[in-house]
Amino acid sequence: MELLKRRIQEDGVVKGSDVLKVDSFLNHQMDIALFQEIGKEFYTRFADCGVNKILTIEASGIGIACITAQFFQCPVVFAKKSKTSNLDDSLYHTRVASFTHATVSDVVAARAYLGPEDRVLIIDDFLANGEALRGLMDILRQAGAELVGAGIVIEKAFQPGGAQLRQEGVRIESLARVASMSEAEGVVFAD
Amino acid sequence: MELLKRRIQEDGVVKGSDVLKVDSFLNHQMDIALFQEIGKEFYTRFADCGVNKILTIEASGIGIACITAQFFQCPVVFAKKSKTSNLDDSLYHTRVASFTHATVSDVVAARAYLGPEDRVLIIDDFLANGEALRGLMDILRQAGAELVGAGIVIEKAFQPGGAQLRQEGVRIESLARVASMSEAEGVVFAD
Repeated sequence: MELLKRRIQEDGVVKGSDVLKVDSFLNHQMDIALFQEIGKEFYTRFADCGVNKILTIEASGIGIACITAQFFQCPVVFAKKSKTSNLDDSLYHTRVASFTHATVSDVVAARAYLGPEDRVLIIDDFLANGEALRGLMDILRQAGAELVGAGIVIEKAFQPGGAQLRQEGVRIESLARVASMSEAEGVVFAD
Repeated sequence: MELLKRRIQEDGVVKGSDVLKVDSFLNHQMDIALFQEIGKEFYTRFADCGVNKILTIEASGIGIACITAQFFQCPVVFAKKSKTSNLDDSLYHTRVASFTHATVSDVVAARAYLGPEDRVLIIDDFLANGEALRGLMDILRQAGAELVGAGIVIEKAFQPGGAQLRQEGVRIESLARVASMSEAEGVVFAD
């Protein structure tokens, strides 16, 4: 998606060799006009898949998921990072490791809102090692829901998550795939 | 807003005397068609205020804020609940108490995205004791930004936040004001 790649080139900030800060337009301040173009693009790619629910994870996936859901005319469920170990039977539960923050989070979603009748598109802002995506997939497996695919805004294609998951048969559509980046050279896209 | 009140009557679940669960349509599963009506209503109420930015707080305010921002054609900033004490000079910082969870959170927003040029509408899903709203107002004060008002989806009018803040001169527009509620009687609206 050229508009997005240009925006990353212009306003993204590379820190070290693997941090890409896009918080001026994507995951802290959110450019809603850009989100509309992103949502439209996800719809173009997944329009014929019978999507009836979008699943994302708090917090930075929520805005993109909601704008995207307007095109699919479906509800959004966001999985929550649980702060309590107070997990009851009404919840699906999985664990998500974060390489960036060196933590493991408990992630939950209410059983009431995901089930075998659902054809689900996962939406998230970033894909790197794929841990968040695997966590959401685990929730869908528990729900017996069908995973249609994952719409990702920025994939760090130099990290292994995307390649591994595609090899396992997951359809992943990433709107900008970063092949490499550095403070000196900036961002180089994969395609 | 009648559509919203009907939805709360139909799908909201009262627990005890002060918990109103609306996670089937507002803050876990999100009904985007309803959010569009909510956004349109906030726009009707604040259309002539020169809003150029919307501020909310993660996580459940984000979806409503993003859909609402489409009507104002402005960006959204969401304040983050910080898990680290790693606060640097690039951030506004405030503290927000939660009566519900009996916790105090550090809440931050990047200085880069809020300043004296901003006329800000705060959007949130709930108003009860007003602590989250006061935290966001504190961030705006630090930024020198102008607070236009607050758009709230559900106000628990039997808790003191809304009345106190209005007395202090804050313009608050709540789309559904709950006067009282109980498991036996359900929800009674204030107007």
